[in-house]
Amino acid sequence: MPSKETKIPDATIGRIALYSRPLEKFLEQGTELISSERLAALCNVNPAQVRKDLSYFGEFGVRGIGYNVRDLLTEIRKILVSDREWKLAIAGVGNMGRALVENVNLLKRGYRFVAAFDSDPKRIGKKLPSGLTVQPLTAIGPSKEELGFEIGVITTGPSYAQAAADMLIRSGVRAILNFSAFQVRQPEGCLVENVDFSIKLDDLAYHLSSISEQ
Amino acid sequence: MPSKETKIPDATIGRIALYSRPLEKFLEQGTELISSERLAALCNVNPAQVRKDLSYFGEFGVRGIGYNVRDLLTEIRKILVSDREWKLAIAGVGNMGRALVENVNLLKRGYRFVAAFDSDPKRIGKKLPSGLTVQPLTAIGPSKEELGFEIGVITTGPSYAQAAADMLIRSGVRAILNFSAFQVRQPEGCLVENVDFSIKLDDLAYHLSSISEQ
Repeated sequence: MPSKETKIPDATIGRIALYSRPLEKFLEQGTELISSERLAALCNVNPAQVRKDLSYFGEFGVRGIGYNVRDLLTEIRKILVSDREWKLAIAGVGNMGRALVENVNLLKRGYRFVAAFDSDPKRIGKKLPSGLTVQPLTAIGPSKEELGFEIGVITTGPSYAQAAADMLIRSGVRAILNFSAFQVRQPEGCLVENVDFSIKLDDLAYHLSSISEQ
Repeated sequence: MPSKETKIPDATIGRIALYSRPLEKFLEQGTELISSERLAALCNVNPAQVRKDLSYFGEFGVRGIGYNVRDLLTEIRKILVSDREWKLAIAGVGNMGRALVENVNLLKRGYRFVAAFDSDPKRIGKKLPSGLTVQPLTAIGPSKEELGFEIGVITTGPSYAQAAADMLIRSGVRAILNFSAFQVRQPEGCLVENVDFSIKLDDLAYHLSSISEQ
């Protein structure tokens, strides 16, 4: 593991999370070594970029042989602090919210939803398949005190997104993943990541047009 | 608009799609000009990066004044080919699939789902709120011939993702957005973008840990 003084760039952090996914698969399959070329191809990244990013974990790479899958993955998880469980709260339990709460992949990675909120009176009080009972948005504060969730996920309609964000932030949540079509404000000391699928589609559409022109 | 010879880097394409979102909002509000600093802050990007990316649309920026919102957005849409409609097919109509098909934001941006498929006999034949009737995955080929969808979206469980991808590709689809937990293979001549929410959470969790250590 790099010394505490080694500052890993933010862009590298995003990519090593990406690299960890095929590594997990190789570990399950019993593969011991992986080359930077193979890992790069699986992640749609340049091999030189992979080598540069993994140079922070330099002792595991052997020139011409590759990286030890298990050791590399262990170190990546330590760096990403993904070797612990995180408690999440969700605001908005429509289709998108329910898809996330029931996503076993997130749970496998240590992201556990411990509370669910919604603004719709018809949904409040209902029990989700995961066992959580839907509470009103106004219960975010007291619920945070009781359950101590650390990350808030917003899947409300656009008109409730800022209100949900404000209540999460006021309750002391310092990281928000926002799936709503509304870009919520990012106050000092709170991290907000906006997820917008249409940006991914714009990217695909652009490249599709470039292919067609050739 | 840049000449056909001007090659815009892929990373810039991804970011200008991001920049277009606040620009749309400013256009709606009647704001005529926007500075690179303001746009950068709204997109969590460095102002120098914004200026560099928008230098491809150079004629709209006036030093010390900013960019003309309407003109810049028009050019971005031309570049991204987002000034036309794209036909999409969805494979997998669980919570995630339904959330996407019913997402009005995607439709507003020209992404229209014209066909829906699933492997679950209980879902096949059902009508979605959007009006689409769910067909079996095996109907992808004939449906593509009839409807001519261009982008496939995979929201199946991991065990059906590769089969869905294979059928989409065999039907002639050349761009796939994959939301399943299974990373599908990317064959020559087909674009595959994998969407993995847990990577976004890893990123938030990492930064949350860094804050706590301070």
